[in-house]
Amino acid sequence: MSRIKVGIIGCGYIAGVHAGILAGDERVEVSAVHDIATECANRIARSQGATVAATPEEVIETCDAVYITAPNTKHVSLATAAADANKHVFCEKPLALTIADAELVVEKSKSSKGIFQVGHNRRFAPVYATLKQKLVDTKPHSAHIKMNRGELLKPVWTGDPNVTGGFLFETTIHMFDMVRFLFGEVESLLAIGSTHEYPEVDDFSVLLKFTNGMHATLASSADASWLFPFERVEVFCHHATFVTREMETLVCSSNIEGHFNQQSMQQLSREEKWGYLQEDRAFVDAIVNNTPPLVTAYDGLMSVKLVEAVYESVKHGQRVDL
Amino acid sequence: MSRIKVGIIGCGYIAGVHAGILAGDERVEVSAVHDIATECANRIARSQGATVAATPEEVIETCDAVYITAPNTKHVSLATAAADANKHVFCEKPLALTIADAELVVEKSKSSKGIFQVGHNRRFAPVYATLKQKLVDTKPHSAHIKMNRGELLKPVWTGDPNVTGGFLFETTIHMFDMVRFLFGEVESLLAIGSTHEYPEVDDFSVLLKFTNGMHATLASSADASWLFPFERVEVFCHHATFVTREMETLVCSSNIEGHFNQQSMQQLSREEKWGYLQEDRAFVDAIVNNTPPLVTAYDGLMSVKLVEAVYESVKHGQRVDL
Amino acid sequence: MSRIKVGIIGCGYIAGVHAGILAGDERVEVSAVHDIATECANRIARSQGATVAATPEEVIETCDAVYITAPNTKHVSLATAAADANKHVFCEKPLALTIADAELVVEKSKSSKGIFQVGHNRRFAPVYATLKQKLVDTKPHSAHIKMNRGELLKPVWTGDPNVTGGFLFETTIHMFDMVRFLFGEVESLLAIGSTHEYPEVDDFSVLLKFTNGMHATLASSADASWLFPFERVEVFCHHATFVTREMETLVCSSNIEGHFNQQSMQQLSREEKWGYLQEDRAFVDAIVNNTPPLVTAYDGLMSVKLVEAVYESVKHGQRVDL
Amino acid sequence: MSRIKVGIIGCGYIAGVHAGILAGDERVEVSAVHDIATECANRIARSQGATVAATPEEVIETCDAVYITAPNTKHVSLATAAADANKHVFCEKPLALTIADAELVVEKSKSSKGIFQVGHNRRFAPVYATLKQKLVDTKPHSAHIKMNRGELLKPVWTGDPNVTGGFLFETTIHMFDMVRFLFGEVESLLAIGSTHEYPEVDDFSVLLKFTNGMHATLASSADASWLFPFERVEVFCHHATFVTREMETLVCSSNIEGHFNQQSMQQLSREEKWGYLQEDRAFVDAIVNNTPPLVTAYDGLMSVKLVEAVYESVKHGQRVDL
Repeated sequence: MSRIKVGIIGCGYIAGVHAGILAGDERVEVSAVHDIATECANRIARSQGATVAATPEEVIETCDAVYITAPNTKHVSLATAAADANKHVFCEKPLALTIADAELVVEKSKSSKGIFQVGHNRRFAPVYATLKQKLVDTKPHSAHIKMNRGELLKPVWTGDPNVTGGFLFETTIHMFDMVRFLFGEVESLLAIGSTHEYPEVDDFSVLLKFTNGMHATLASSADASWLFPFERVEVFCHHATFVTREMETLVCSSNIEGHFNQQSMQQLSREEKWGYLQEDRAFVDAIVNNTPPLVTAYDGLMSVKLVEAVYESVKHGQRVDL
Repeated sequence: MSRIKVGIIGCGYIAGVHAGILAGDERVEVSAVHDIATECANRIARSQGATVAATPEEVIETCDAVYITAPNTKHVSLATAAADANKHVFCEKPLALTIADAELVVEKSKSSKGIFQVGHNRRFAPVYATLKQKLVDTKPHSAHIKMNRGELLKPVWTGDPNVTGGFLFETTIHMFDMVRFLFGEVESLLAIGSTHEYPEVDDFSVLLKFTNGMHATLASSADASWLFPFERVEVFCHHATFVTREMETLVCSSNIEGHFNQQSMQQLSREEKWGYLQEDRAFVDAIVNNTPPLVTAYDGLMSVKLVEAVYESVKHGQRVDL
Repeated sequence: MSRIKVGIIGCGYIAGVHAGILAGDERVEVSAVHDIATECANRIARSQGATVAATPEEVIETCDAVYITAPNTKHVSLATAAADANKHVFCEKPLALTIADAELVVEKSKSSKGIFQVGHNRRFAPVYATLKQKLVDTKPHSAHIKMNRGELLKPVWTGDPNVTGGFLFETTIHMFDMVRFLFGEVESLLAIGSTHEYPEVDDFSVLLKFTNGMHATLASSADASWLFPFERVEVFCHHATFVTREMETLVCSSNIEGHFNQQSMQQLSREEKWGYLQEDRAFVDAIVNNTPPLVTAYDGLMSVKLVEAVYESVKHGQRVDL
Repeated sequence: MSRIKVGIIGCGYIAGVHAGILAGDERVEVSAVHDIATECANRIARSQGATVAATPEEVIETCDAVYITAPNTKHVSLATAAADANKHVFCEKPLALTIADAELVVEKSKSSKGIFQVGHNRRFAPVYATLKQKLVDTKPHSAHIKMNRGELLKPVWTGDPNVTGGFLFETTIHMFDMVRFLFGEVESLLAIGSTHEYPEVDDFSVLLKFTNGMHATLASSADASWLFPFERVEVFCHHATFVTREMETLVCSSNIEGHFNQQSMQQLSREEKWGYLQEDRAFVDAIVNNTPPLVTAYDGLMSVKLVEAVYESVKHGQRVDL
């Protein structure tokens, strides 16, 4: 059987991660890549033996599946074009920068004959995947979540809301998909934000209510420090606490003596720790087996809705129902 | 100069802590103690060479200063009686279980000739006292705070809201005084609560807005686990993060390389780590020097107001202005 | 049944610890205490309702059991006197400061009708007691052990070898008893020492061979820092590592994925964490039940032999056979 | 100026690491590679745009500089051939598997016109490089060092002493170079070893004496677990302790309060954390500037001598002078 031809549109850091992973999957070949910065495209093309395409359209046309790893503002037009062409699409997060755009992509993904998966990698990271299994038997009561950064300087475009769509779209959106994955749908939220170092709201405190009765606090700062762990989820249950520290460790304490079990992901490669390897394998699995993708355009839409709800709540000072 | 005669009303665990500390202060002597359980009174009396008083009134009458370490429901009547008698009063937290009662005690404390201090020990714990100093130079943007317990079983009355006045009055009130100490007054809050294992709301998520523009998330669960740290304050600043872990350590990260400085309180006695020693010394200092106490009845009132605001917000599902 | 009359000779810090524990054991009463510093004797006497004896002999004469908590240099004469009088003896470590003296005490303990226990508390500390149980099923191959201090200043006599008998007798002897407890008898050792801040050898590196074929490295510095953990035992087994950190935590890793289980002793009192409570209970148990003590004079002798062997090896630069 | 032509002999894991780093250095190009397993050679050749050479000799002949990343048993013949050809040589550790062979390579390296560097990467790892700087001002008294593994299974040849030359040559040799780097030359050592799971001595305890009076304990187990940290160096100084944990963190405690400063290398790439990037840059620097390499064949020889001394000491049960 011939290999699935994969194209990559946008050849920055995350494109290199996916390309490296795809190179190890015998079912696919990276056959065409495109970037407006030709040297970026060349670098990935050379390491993969791929051709450099002159336009995104050429990538879409010549490939069976397309990775959309271009800047956030380009996701919608590229994703709809690829879906319209009935190609399989792996679209990096965020799916879109407005709810309307995200809904459009959901429509397109439904009418397309291709698989459509969104790059919410946290679901595949072993710490979160294992935590979800734990929560099957141990019902969570509430959660205390944070995701901070030390700066929006590396790379420099992370500090430009015209490129990212806003800090929450770039960084914190991971947590919004993660809470849906672990705890289900959000019913309402209230958020407070403040602006300090960047030309946008860069510090958030959020209170979340879930449809199943759970509740959670979420803090997200753009500009704190990189003190480990910059990402932490703490789940409170009956005589049990679960804590993740970045994608490095999962601590399970199911007693009232303070003893705990810590699962370390230290031995895994970064690609596995962060779930990139698993999400790429899952995407190819879905193509090969013609099964639904594990993260759908609808999931991408719901994350966008949560981001928008936080921005709206900050702006108007009111609780927002989802 | 003769020693200040200190009386203790209520001879449980915390009374023993204060008695042990006072025994090391040459300016005072524990001269009378009372408890409805005579054997508890006897135990402290014997170790301090104090007399066992038959009634609280006898303690108040015969002493210069009174420690009120009786159950929460007794604080108001004892505190007002002692203040009315113009005695110095150290009243354990919570000051009262209703705002009206707390306001009454504030009135009484103002008209009394005695010093009136409330037992919000966190202010004196080295981790929090040091953190406050750090925040003079480094302006905080937001905070992410949790205080959980593993159970409400030890001692067993901690699970009985008729004795405690409610979980927040017993445990979480420490965090409310601490946020005022570190960040100033709260402007408004929204809280969600749920009930799981105890006959009261025992799991809380709270969003706080401060008058100075800061905001914070606070989680407090009665029934999680005793996984270290059960109490943690994380403060986000410009390129800086401060984290406390219980009263054991303060971590300061003021860079974007992830390096940090950790101050450990490991070598301190528990009495010093938790600030009990310092609050007792400060109380005697205030008496001896006739200076204002460092934690006033007003501070006690404000903590009660925050607790009440959370309960009201949980009940009505609305934001509460302070 | 009347209570066992316990006397205490030497009323410093550790005497206070034992007195406090004995006060909670209904089978005994602290009836007489002695110290050349009368105020120290008074303090413990008052808190226990004991009488202050004018001489050690008076304590021995009037009591059923004697705690020897005097300075190290006094242990032998007091222990032999009490044993000769057929009293039960709890002798703090070190049993003696020479092998000959320790052997004399062993003789006396054998001919005495009383129980004779030595204060090697590590055996009773939950981290070490639990570790020993683990090693029943998981055979240890080797161990890597350290015990350092930050200084020999608190209290000040810890830096005076005329009082302590030498740093190893005061501090590191705990580790020598602990290795015998966990791993069995030492066959030979080679040690290197150096002198830096104190008028004695204050920094040691030791290589140990056990009769069962195990081997171990042990480092002990008098003058490093109090960085946690100052005491750590790391045991290497087949696909397993066990690590203790002071008497706070025991980490068990029995896999090759880096996962581990951590038992925290955080909730225990210091008296329980360090095994003082358990050793005092065990001593009284042995008296009441007329059973052999769990730490014998022979154990005390063997620790002295190991200390002496290290000093001899350092002095002559040769391996010493035990 | 034309790029330095680099050849790689042996195309396993570590060759890939070096190739990836060299690809980012504009002063060099990887021009020829060889491996007896052609597919390994092909993989690196393709990613670097290099040619696959039929023999090692062809690599040596056609290149200016040669990386010797073949199995340990091949190092000597390849290194001498390349040095004889006056090529620059980067030889992975161990330099040789016998002292005689290592001395031969030292000779050859001296008579060669090329630079000769040995791959002792620990010296370049930021944790160790920073620690060395700290020890300039703070004189070390002694050290407590361990390096364990969880198994010798990944890759499978690590468990075959015919391929590695012995466990110490493969794994622990890093620590021998590191102690020389940090503490200077070893004067003598005594070691005990035991055999458990592999067809060789796989568990070692070592006592080291340095010519400057320092002493150290070193434990190294082949078959424990991958509990973090599997590599730790603890240095005791006057009122100071320094601790490294793998190449992740450096802890500096220069007080007797237990406070510390922790430098985290978390944000660095693995290539930088482990010093691979820096050693490759240093090698090219030495070539370009015609300066002495930072790790010489003599350093390689001395590490081999230390490994041999440990094996000899284990075999004969005697102290070995270096």
